[in-house]
Amino acid sequence: MNTLKDMGEAGLIERLTRRLGTARDVVVGPGDDCAVVRTADEEWLLTSDPVIEGVHFDSAATPQQIGHKALARSLSDIAAMGGTPRWALVDLVAPGDTPAERLDGIYAGLSATADEHGIAIVGGDVAAGPVIELHVFAVGSLPQGSAILRSGAAAGDGIYVTGALGGSRLEGHHLSFTPRLREGRWLRESGWATAMCDISDGLSTDLHHLAAASGVGMAIRLASVPCSPAARSTPDPLTHALCDGEDFELLFTVAPEHLADVEAAWQGNAMAACTRIGTVTIDRGVMGIGAHESCSPLDATGYDHFGKEENGS
Amino acid sequence: MNTLKDMGEAGLIERLTRRLGTARDVVVGPGDDCAVVRTADEEWLLTSDPVIEGVHFDSAATPQQIGHKALARSLSDIAAMGGTPRWALVDLVAPGDTPAERLDGIYAGLSATADEHGIAIVGGDVAAGPVIELHVFAVGSLPQGSAILRSGAAAGDGIYVTGALGGSRLEGHHLSFTPRLREGRWLRESGWATAMCDISDGLSTDLHHLAAASGVGMAIRLASVPCSPAARSTPDPLTHALCDGEDFELLFTVAPEHLADVEAAWQGNAMAACTRIGTVTIDRGVMGIGAHESCSPLDATGYDHFGKEENGS
Repeated sequence: MNTLKDMGEAGLIERLTRRLGTARDVVVGPGDDCAVVRTADEEWLLTSDPVIEGVHFDSAATPQQIGHKALARSLSDIAAMGGTPRWALVDLVAPGDTPAERLDGIYAGLSATADEHGIAIVGGDVAAGPVIELHVFAVGSLPQGSAILRSGAAAGDGIYVTGALGGSRLEGHHLSFTPRLREGRWLRESGWATAMCDISDGLSTDLHHLAAASGVGMAIRLASVPCSPAARSTPDPLTHALCDGEDFELLFTVAPEHLADVEAAWQGNAMAACTRIGTVTIDRGVMGIGAHESCSPLDATGYDHFGKEENGS
Repeated sequence: MNTLKDMGEAGLIERLTRRLGTARDVVVGPGDDCAVVRTADEEWLLTSDPVIEGVHFDSAATPQQIGHKALARSLSDIAAMGGTPRWALVDLVAPGDTPAERLDGIYAGLSATADEHGIAIVGGDVAAGPVIELHVFAVGSLPQGSAILRSGAAAGDGIYVTGALGGSRLEGHHLSFTPRLREGRWLRESGWATAMCDISDGLSTDLHHLAAASGVGMAIRLASVPCSPAARSTPDPLTHALCDGEDFELLFTVAPEHLADVEAAWQGNAMAACTRIGTVTIDRGVMGIGAHESCSPLDATGYDHFGKEENGS
C-alpha cells in the first residue's frame, strides 16, 4: 500500500494538485509561494475552519465526506454573510503512514464540493502530524457594504431558521450537509435580512451569539422550532434541535415591515424550508416560550470545543 | 492554573481577540462568520502555513516564538512574490489542558509580528486537538501583473540569495527569523528579479523548485554559498547551508543586463546581505561547481515532511 511516507511531500503535493482545475480570476494557482487572484472592486469575506479527526469526524466517516465537510464548513460561513465563495486554500495534516487512497478520497470530496459551488482550490500546505486534519481557508466576495452581519437585529424583527434542526451527528448530516449559499445570497440580494449567522454550535448557543452581537434579546416559540427527522426519532426532539451542533442552517432576522415579503417570496424559489421561530425583544437575554405562554431563559447549551461545563449566556 | 477547559471556547475566543486592533480596510474584524475586508484594484496573494508542535517547534520554543514563527512563515511566502502583507486568519488547535498563559504568549507573539509588519489578524477559529498547532492564512496584495513568480528564470540569469544559510535549527533562527518583506518588495519595485521563492525546504531543494518551475537548469558555485555562523560552527558548513530547511531567506534570479544594477543598488538600502551564487543554464538539472571547476549534480536533499528517503530531483 502506498503511504505518505512512500511518496514524500513533493509526491503528495503533486498528487493532490494535479486534479485541481484552473478558474476565472486565478492568475497563479498552486505551486508558487502564494496563489495570485484578481477581482473587481468588491468586498472580501475571509474565513477559516478546522476539521479534525476525533473531533469533527470519526472512523465511520468516508474520506469523501471528510473532504466535503472541511470545505462546506467554510462555505457555510460565507453563506451566513450573503456572499459568493471564490477561492480556498487547504492545509492538510496527516500521519506518515496514512494510505494514499485515503487522501485521494479526501481530495475527491473537496474537489466535488468546490466544483459544485464554482470555487477554485488555489493552494495550501501539507505537514506531518498525529491525526488527520484539514484547515480550509475560504475567500468570498460581495458588493461593498452588503454583508449581512450578526449585529443588525432590532427589537420587533422576526427570527427565522432554514431547514430542520437537531440530530446532525445522529444521522450523519454533519458530513453531508448543503451549505445554504443560495439562501444566503438571496437574502442579501433582497435586502430584507437585518442580521444572520449560521447554526454551527447549536440553535440555543447561536441565538445567544446573534442577540449579544446586536445588543438585543430574543423570544423563541419553542413549538415553532423545526425538528429534523433524526431529532424526532429521539425521546426529546426539542432538546436536540436546541442543543446539538453542526446543523449548518441559517439563523436570520427580518424587519417587521418585510416579514410578509420574505415569507411570500421565499416560497417560489426552491430553497430550503424557512420557519419563523420568534421575535427580537428589547429586553436582553434569550427566552423560550412554551405551552400556555410559560416563559423561561433558554441557556446556551450547545457544543463547546474545550468542554466547558457552565456555558450559560 | 487556568486552562482551556476552564475558560471554554467562547472564553478563549474572547480572550484571544480582545487584544487584536482594528486596521485600515477592515470592514468587519473577528466575531462574525467571516471577516470583511476592502481594497482598491490590486491583485491578491493567498497563502497558508501550518506550525505544529513536535514538527515545527519543540518544548524549547517560547510561546512568543511559536506565534512569531506561525505568522512569519506566511509572511515569507508573501515576501517571495514581492507583495505587501495585509490580513491574516489564525486557526488554533490545542489540547484542553493547555494553560491559558501559554496561549496568551502565543498570541502575544502573533500580535507583535503582525504589528511590526502592519497587518491585521481579522479572524480564525479554535478547536481541540492532540497537540498545539497554528494554521495561519495570510492575504497580501500587489499591483496587477507584478508578482515575481517561480517560473520566470531564463538561461544566463544570475542566481542570488539573501542572508546566510544553514543551521537554522541549530541556533533557533527558525523561531526568530525576519521575513524578507523589505527585500522582496524592493525587488518587485525594481523590476529586476525574473524569478523568486523563499528558502524553506533547504537551498538545494528550493533550487530544484525554481529550476523546475522555470524549465531551466542551475549551476551553483559552491564556494560562493554564504554559510551562517551556526553552519560554520559545524564540521561541514556547506552541507548545512545546502540541506537544512527553514532559512526563510529569498532565492531569486536577475537577467544578465541587470546584474550590475542590482548589486550596485542593493548596497545603499540597508537590506539583508545579497550574494550571487551561480548562473541559470540551458541544460536542465542543478549542478554544484566545486574546486578546480569540478562539476557534480546537486541533489535536492532538504527537509521532507513525510520522511521520504529518496528525494533527489
